[in-house]
Amino acid sequence: MARRLKSLDELRRLPAVSAAPAPGARKAAVAVAPVRVLGIDPGSRYTGWGLLECRGQRSQFLAAGRIVSTQGAMPERLLTVFEGLCAVIAEHRPDEIALEETFVNRSNAQSALVLGQARGVAMLAAARTGLPFAEYAAAQVKLAIAGHGRADKQQIAQMVKLLLKLQAAHSEDATDALAVALCHAHVRGTISQGHPALKGSW
Amino acid sequence: MARRLKSLDELRRLPAVSAAPAPGARKAAVAVAPVRVLGIDPGSRYTGWGLLECRGQRSQFLAAGRIVSTQGAMPERLLTVFEGLCAVIAEHRPDEIALEETFVNRSNAQSALVLGQARGVAMLAAARTGLPFAEYAAAQVKLAIAGHGRADKQQIAQMVKLLLKLQAAHSEDATDALAVALCHAHVRGTISQGHPALKGSW
Repeated sequence: MARRLKSLDELRRLPAVSAAPAPGARKAAVAVAPVRVLGIDPGSRYTGWGLLECRGQRSQFLAAGRIVSTQGAMPERLLTVFEGLCAVIAEHRPDEIALEETFVNRSNAQSALVLGQARGVAMLAAARTGLPFAEYAAAQVKLAIAGHGRADKQQIAQMVKLLLKLQAAHSEDATDALAVALCHAHVRGTISQGHPALKGSW
Repeated sequence: MARRLKSLDELRRLPAVSAAPAPGARKAAVAVAPVRVLGIDPGSRYTGWGLLECRGQRSQFLAAGRIVSTQGAMPERLLTVFEGLCAVIAEHRPDEIALEETFVNRSNAQSALVLGQARGVAMLAAARTGLPFAEYAAAQVKLAIAGHGRADKQQIAQMVKLLLKLQAAHSEDATDALAVALCHAHVRGTISQGHPALKGSW
């Protein structure tokens, strides 16, 4: 049976990834334990995912991809998204999961409903793991990656490529997922250092 | 692993529930096999469900209830909806599943997104069973239950109670779910009789 999701308070009490060593501790003993962060960018047709390994403030690219669910009726497509994400989680065993908060255009409720369906399935795949889970607004992701909240998609993609020293090309969906994983890595590192402005972000 | 959902064409080729007996067949042999229909009315806080047993044009109430998911963060609530629906399906073993198409207010995309999340999870619970699945617009449900597409909630509830000879009181969510199950029972019965106007409904 699925474990329950950890509360936000529990998330805030997670061990600091860049904690200072105890006084007198040997240098070799203070290596920060790596944390695997999975970023997800859900959609009813394409769901991006990206996996990073974070050690303190450093993040390293591990894997990324996208789940294609363009075929069949909506329930089938949602099943593809769900099974795809469960397979990614089972294979890559993340420690934490991050999702971008969806921006919805006020005037397009029908699109919001369809997007919500894919998003609900992605949240469910995350919730079933019982892993710490966080959401970030698009502006937060942009701020963390590009230094300002109004960066465009291309700028974000360029920064993700630079920051993670990506060699291969990745789909837009995978890049978006890597961006939210990077944002989460940044926030969790900053929280562990006691940054007051970010403590309420997750 | 989950079986794939049947296509709409497959649904249309389902055995007719009120098929005429083969010429010369004994009367005792033409008893129509009962079909269990589960109606679902998903929501992020309350998800109604209602189960009917249909024999030809007759529908009999079997069970109904609602899943309460008002506590916790959204992923936890979606997990409650999903696990609740999976438990209902496992316990009551429906043969077919029906969902009401969600009406979304154009100006409220945020609500549509939240509702979509619960709806996605309900669709997933249905899709994982591999059972025939159908969706009905609210107007179709009203037409099937009350004879016109503009009946209000109270009229529909009254008709559901009358048609199913309900003794006990049920929540609004459970009644809505029974209404969509009744609509499905009506449509599948009518399709099996070759009603041309309804053949495209599922």
